[in-house]
Amino acid sequence: MDNTKHYFDWAATAPIDRDIQSEAFNFSIEHWANPSSLHRPGEDARRALEETRENIAQYLGIKPKEVFFTSGGTESNHIPLLSMLNRPQKGSIAISAIEHPSVREMAKEVEHCGFKLLLIEPDKNGIVQVESVLKTIQKDTVYVSIMAVNNETGAIQPIKQIADALDNLKTTSRKPFFHVDCVQAAGKIPLELSYKGIDAASISAHKLGGPRGCGLLYLKKEITPFLKGGGQEMGVRSGTENLFGAKALELCIKKYYLYEDNKIAQDRLKTQTEYTDIFIKKLKEIKNFRLIPQKRSEDNYSALYSPWIVQGAIIGTPGQVMQRALSEKGFYISTGSACSSGRHAHPVLDSMHIAPEEKESAVRFSFGHESTLEEMLLLSNAIKEVSESL
Amino acid sequence: MDNTKHYFDWAATAPIDRDIQSEAFNFSIEHWANPSSLHRPGEDARRALEETRENIAQYLGIKPKEVFFTSGGTESNHIPLLSMLNRPQKGSIAISAIEHPSVREMAKEVEHCGFKLLLIEPDKNGIVQVESVLKTIQKDTVYVSIMAVNNETGAIQPIKQIADALDNLKTTSRKPFFHVDCVQAAGKIPLELSYKGIDAASISAHKLGGPRGCGLLYLKKEITPFLKGGGQEMGVRSGTENLFGAKALELCIKKYYLYEDNKIAQDRLKTQTEYTDIFIKKLKEIKNFRLIPQKRSEDNYSALYSPWIVQGAIIGTPGQVMQRALSEKGFYISTGSACSSGRHAHPVLDSMHIAPEEKESAVRFSFGHESTLEEMLLLSNAIKEVSESL
Repeated sequence: MDNTKHYFDWAATAPIDRDIQSEAFNFSIEHWANPSSLHRPGEDARRALEETRENIAQYLGIKPKEVFFTSGGTESNHIPLLSMLNRPQKGSIAISAIEHPSVREMAKEVEHCGFKLLLIEPDKNGIVQVESVLKTIQKDTVYVSIMAVNNETGAIQPIKQIADALDNLKTTSRKPFFHVDCVQAAGKIPLELSYKGIDAASISAHKLGGPRGCGLLYLKKEITPFLKGGGQEMGVRSGTENLFGAKALELCIKKYYLYEDNKIAQDRLKTQTEYTDIFIKKLKEIKNFRLIPQKRSEDNYSALYSPWIVQGAIIGTPGQVMQRALSEKGFYISTGSACSSGRHAHPVLDSMHIAPEEKESAVRFSFGHESTLEEMLLLSNAIKEVSESL
Repeated sequence: MDNTKHYFDWAATAPIDRDIQSEAFNFSIEHWANPSSLHRPGEDARRALEETRENIAQYLGIKPKEVFFTSGGTESNHIPLLSMLNRPQKGSIAISAIEHPSVREMAKEVEHCGFKLLLIEPDKNGIVQVESVLKTIQKDTVYVSIMAVNNETGAIQPIKQIADALDNLKTTSRKPFFHVDCVQAAGKIPLELSYKGIDAASISAHKLGGPRGCGLLYLKKEITPFLKGGGQEMGVRSGTENLFGAKALELCIKKYYLYEDNKIAQDRLKTQTEYTDIFIKKLKEIKNFRLIPQKRSEDNYSALYSPWIVQGAIIGTPGQVMQRALSEKGFYISTGSACSSGRHAHPVLDSMHIAPEEKESAVRFSFGHESTLEEMLLLSNAIKEVSESL
């Protein structure tokens, strides 16, 4: 894993946490049977799976019956959204304009099935203000989905205020189902999934050092699933249960999730905040560097962004050129979401009305628990060198 | 893994193939990055993933671009079916009445989205005859799904004849999309996925000793996917690619799939056919035993059933009672599909018009490459003992 040395693309995936993955792998070898089988090996696998679910619930401060194992963040984002298709009456679905493609593109499909799609615009700093939510939703809005931390800018969304505002709608009209994509937030910033007004949330294991191919869906409110099959996970997610993924999720959440007793994760967050402040100061010394959004470095704004993701641009140096040049030097960054790496669209930056020259040069630096200040300063030096040599 | 000793529930899941899973696990540790990332570790993961796809294609006799990695058999069954939702014109969907719940229950949901669902009835021996297919489909039938081997009875379906018949429709009308669920057939009986007229097929890794949570979708015909997200797998299956699962699938297919050069698998199939013939003879000596379907043991019928799955009933002993009694003796069987173990419905046996006393007493014995004749004879003895003691 030498190539994890100058890795600054943790938002795409975290380098593997070998201890966690090995323990989860051995667990899956031990509990190999199908948990739906009614013989001893099956019952053993069922017991092991349910213990995993109980442990996760404890760390997340939720109930075991609210924890559902899925095949990843994408599926966790799909399941509650698709459950809307089973409503006898259609209506509108409101998502922020900065959602991950697994919400944004799936919502467009749902639109073709008789729903109206409403886009909630962020402000120019990439933050979805509660006023924007209330202005956008309509009386027939049945579903709202807003991510906790944006995967490109790192902007932390005011989830609790939005949850409060949606919950207040109960008095006058029907409260929409509120789903929060927590893929970039879990294990990075404090999250209170059980907060009143939040009905569902998504977490992915591989962003936390766990395996690719498994995720968690938190569901407080019962749903009528659209995707159907063997009826596993209380009918919410059909398919033989992946015990390797489930155990890895438990261990990742135990280690990285910022629950009350997890002082190590809390201290690491404080440290990262300091590192990132210094890193941003260094970047601002580079000629033609612009922070995206620019206000992020102002005192009253810096707390609004996750210290684990920084976006910026060296004006005049296309993002892909910077990425390739850094990769050749052994520094691994991205130009945005890995999921849309093949395309040149910038829906998130578009919605923030970012200037064309900034969009074209945008690069993303993302960090994890193994990132060091030393490495981050090497990165800022490398960026400086590349920008001066081009 | 002591509890794999008298395990006769391979159709629910295969005991773990430790060599395969360990090799795949190490591969995923080595190629840990997100294959969509455009830096070196990402490109390394992409290369590794595509090599895996190429190897699989070679074993299956298909093209690499026809191989799609999914989260399992359920999702492989869903993807082509759900793609019908994107058709500008609706129509009817025809599935056999003996399909797995991931086809049957999902098709019912699609029915709510403007399609008509047609059920193709099997004959009383559990075989979906080509005449039944042609009688059931209509001019507006856009999709046909029929499994290659039934998961409860082991009945081998005449997939090639059905494919021929559907392909012949090209001359007079539009040929429906033909999907084949091969989950119980792959690695068990010869399969020719590239056969003319077959448009899609599903395979699951954990039925072959691989991990739970990964599967393969063969797609010869291009589809317009309904489930959307980051656009991985050429847009067919969004979500960060699971390299552990992909590599395990490659190794499982290499070892167990009955491609031309795989003499070991071919010999093992012959051996299993002999074992199962002896096993069935032994079962028939037990008082009140009835084979389901009864004709299976007749000379001109036995070749129509997979030797890896045997269904029968001890009339008067409820299936669940037999299963529990055998489990206490350390013999692990099932009463049918593990997926529907919590329910008492028998849609497959219902469609075959199996007598109520047989349905109530039905049990399934399923075998794998590690099953021995000695073990199978111990099982038939144990069944005899249980039936006499109750």
